[in-house]
Amino acid sequence: MSYSETPEPPYLAVIFGFRLRTTDTAEYLATADRLMEIARQLDGFYGEEAARVEGGLCLTVSYWRDEDAIRVWRENLEHTAARQRGKREWYESFRVRVARVERDYGFQAATSE
Amino acid sequence: MSYSETPEPPYLAVIFGFRLRTTDTAEYLATADRLMEIARQLDGFYGEEAARVEGGLCLTVSYWRDEDAIRVWRENLEHTAARQRGKREWYESFRVRVARVERDYGFQAATSE
Repeated sequence: MSYSETPEPPYLAVIFGFRLRTTDTAEYLATADRLMEIARQLDGFYGEEAARVEGGLCLTVSYWRDEDAIRVWRENLEHTAARQRGKREWYESFRVRVARVERDYGFQAATSE
Repeated sequence: MSYSETPEPPYLAVIFGFRLRTTDTAEYLATADRLMEIARQLDGFYGEEAARVEGGLCLTVSYWRDEDAIRVWRENLEHTAARQRGKREWYESFRVRVARVERDYGFQAATSE
């Protein structure tokens, strides 16, 4: 899992915080991987960063060119089916926040130790 | 670690993705906890969600009323010292994205299983 290579701002970020009902996450993770394969083929998708903590709060942030790109992804049939299954089976709770990135910067250590 | 209780949008999100150089994170985590104690006392701080993955990509998202609140936090002396130490000792790399949350929604399963 690596950083997303996003363009110069502005662009959109979908901040997704969630808790899973179960720690048996193999099928959830396989579905998440499959969905990312589909998203990567979409125009206006800039990548996703994921930090999944077993038994705890998980965060993923996906990056998008604009609201139209998010809408196409939201209406994707496989994604829609997975969201419905997620509510029935996988998610204890989640929070979604759609935000417009206004500035960004980074740091890379000179030597990797 | 729980969800942040944020007000109605708009508000700001600071998306912080990072990798640590070491898996010996006790001192890093103690510092992060101490900084959150300070942040919670600041006007305009709405909370932080954190997902730290040992040896992997970590994500935290903190929520703020406006740029002035972020600036006060950025200029806090203890926070500034911790950021400098982080670059010297703790972070292999990081990415910061400051974004304006435009809409949010959530889900809570009816029964906790």
